[in-house]
Amino acid sequence: MLVDGKYYRTIWPNKALTGVTIIDQTYLPFKFELRELTSLDAVVEAIKSMRVRGAPLIGVAAAYGLAIALTKNPSDQSLMEAKKKLIGSRPTAVNLSWAVNLLCNKIEIEPIVNRISTVWMLANNLADEDIKTNKSIGEFGFELIDKIKKPRINILTHCNAGWLATIDHGTALSPIYKAFEKGLDIHVWVDETRPRNQGMNLTAWELAQENIPHTVITDNAGGLLMQRGEVDLVIVGADRVSIDGDVCNKIGTYLKAIAAKTHNIPFYVAAPISTLDLSYHDENNLFDIECRDEDEILKVKGMDSSNNLTEVRIGYSSAYNPAFDITPSKYVSKIICEKGIYNSTDIRKAIK
Amino acid sequence: MLVDGKYYRTIWPNKALTGVTIIDQTYLPFKFELRELTSLDAVVEAIKSMRVRGAPLIGVAAAYGLAIALTKNPSDQSLMEAKKKLIGSRPTAVNLSWAVNLLCNKIEIEPIVNRISTVWMLANNLADEDIKTNKSIGEFGFELIDKIKKPRINILTHCNAGWLATIDHGTALSPIYKAFEKGLDIHVWVDETRPRNQGMNLTAWELAQENIPHTVITDNAGGLLMQRGEVDLVIVGADRVSIDGDVCNKIGTYLKAIAAKTHNIPFYVAAPISTLDLSYHDENNLFDIECRDEDEILKVKGMDSSNNLTEVRIGYSSAYNPAFDITPSKYVSKIICEKGIYNSTDIRKAIK
Repeated sequence: MLVDGKYYRTIWPNKALTGVTIIDQTYLPFKFELRELTSLDAVVEAIKSMRVRGAPLIGVAAAYGLAIALTKNPSDQSLMEAKKKLIGSRPTAVNLSWAVNLLCNKIEIEPIVNRISTVWMLANNLADEDIKTNKSIGEFGFELIDKIKKPRINILTHCNAGWLATIDHGTALSPIYKAFEKGLDIHVWVDETRPRNQGMNLTAWELAQENIPHTVITDNAGGLLMQRGEVDLVIVGADRVSIDGDVCNKIGTYLKAIAAKTHNIPFYVAAPISTLDLSYHDENNLFDIECRDEDEILKVKGMDSSNNLTEVRIGYSSAYNPAFDITPSKYVSKIICEKGIYNSTDIRKAIK
Repeated sequence: MLVDGKYYRTIWPNKALTGVTIIDQTYLPFKFELRELTSLDAVVEAIKSMRVRGAPLIGVAAAYGLAIALTKNPSDQSLMEAKKKLIGSRPTAVNLSWAVNLLCNKIEIEPIVNRISTVWMLANNLADEDIKTNKSIGEFGFELIDKIKKPRINILTHCNAGWLATIDHGTALSPIYKAFEKGLDIHVWVDETRPRNQGMNLTAWELAQENIPHTVITDNAGGLLMQRGEVDLVIVGADRVSIDGDVCNKIGTYLKAIAAKTHNIPFYVAAPISTLDLSYHDENNLFDIECRDEDEILKVKGMDSSNNLTEVRIGYSSAYNPAFDITPSKYVSKIICEKGIYNSTDIRKAIK
């Protein structure tokens, strides 16, 4: 999408195929900063510290990480080391292990001399494929927005599942971009999404760049808005979707899903098929949910009065910081993927 | 309660009965600051800018505001002016207009020469009465906590309905203090409560002063904790309760109430009878919900690395900041008031 009128992806390889450039998302919306990553460790650090984040984007970033590692050393040992480090960099998004495993399986059977060119080609393909996928999600998701016959359509979204969470277009925001492009009168309620404020920092920034009407709200406000009839649909992304249609997504998603069901408001999840986790199929078998540092809750970064990016401590207690929750499929009206629109409990059909 | 071992109320008159001292809650937990208020305008400002907050406390603060105004000028005109200014200082908490009307009705029939001594006596009585009320809420609420037969009882609370929201003891936290005093093994999940973070700033500070085990969480986390069985009960305060048992409280309360019902977790509201609004009895007739400045969402105050209290801007979009929401009575398991424990739909019986 455009940033100040210039087209960007969230990640791209340098010409010599020795590294990649990313938009460093930890500085948004305060500064638009690019960052070059030229080592495996730099890629792992960028994923861990969320310079790149969003399930689809970290999948592709990990693929490029593998390419960078193999460019330095294409041996089996190097491949195994890189695979382990990348998969361990963040535990929840299944796209990460999906992408790394996909590439590793193809590369380990390649002769060493071909590995470097192959891995860059595969990583680039994955990036291109992500864009196609998201455009398709946008087309299908648009149909669901277009069905709502109101003068102005109010859409609530949580966290950031926009183009910044992918290579381009986004998942949950892709139908919103499409709807705006087609001239629907839409307005987006943006959950700020504590503790890391991806809604306020990233979603609002994205929407502003594309001139889409939006308003930031606290994560607490959605219930009141639904009560008042000011939300026509909810759309979010996903970090992992079980074969039964349970959705693991940013902490707080579940509260919005329950509230949406209470108010008969459609609750849509937009996610590529790569987000499906075939091994996860029991609602009660909660897989490990990433628990992040308490300082993400207790400290906040912002611009001080002299326009310096400053971190301030806002709390002194101990804090507990699980990053995701699980929304059982019964709260999910539809799942939108690149193949179409599915009832959440039928999502397994998308991979047949 | 104790602050660093010394007993405090949240507000008290000076000896000359010309003004009051308050704990300025806008500095907590960063600094413990007292502030003298010696004019009506100073009291109104303190209520508006939430130096004092919490429905019971602003009722008493307004009563003292009336006393300060009448001490300067006990005329009818002065009384009417003070009444109007105080009632208009914050719109949602019914205790404010309840306290001001109660005092005004008594004072306007008094001869002018008696008014000053009468108003101070009434304001002091109101403060003392609040403490008795909250102790009683603590006793009744304790029974509900004590009923839960588990080695450790996990209680979730939203916003601050502790002693800082009252004159002493608190409403929702009063049963928690009582349970701790009686030796129950309790642990409190403290919703940070965006945008003003009263949970993180005030509730966590209060509980720390009393050594009660607690952990701060984002407002988004409660759903996951309930899903995992890590919440045994929810207890919150109220700014207004309808005669039918609908509860107006800090924004985000409603989302927790829906989630608690989904998980069969008791959801208790602790509030004095003065919080009941006899004129509010239609769930669909949503009374005015105070909408506060968007900067409460877009700016945050905290300690910088040099230990200076600094405000930073965290967002650049426009934001919408309703301060309260309404939880219909069907989501409220019980209402605890000074007269006992009521089914939410029976709360009218408490005033008979």
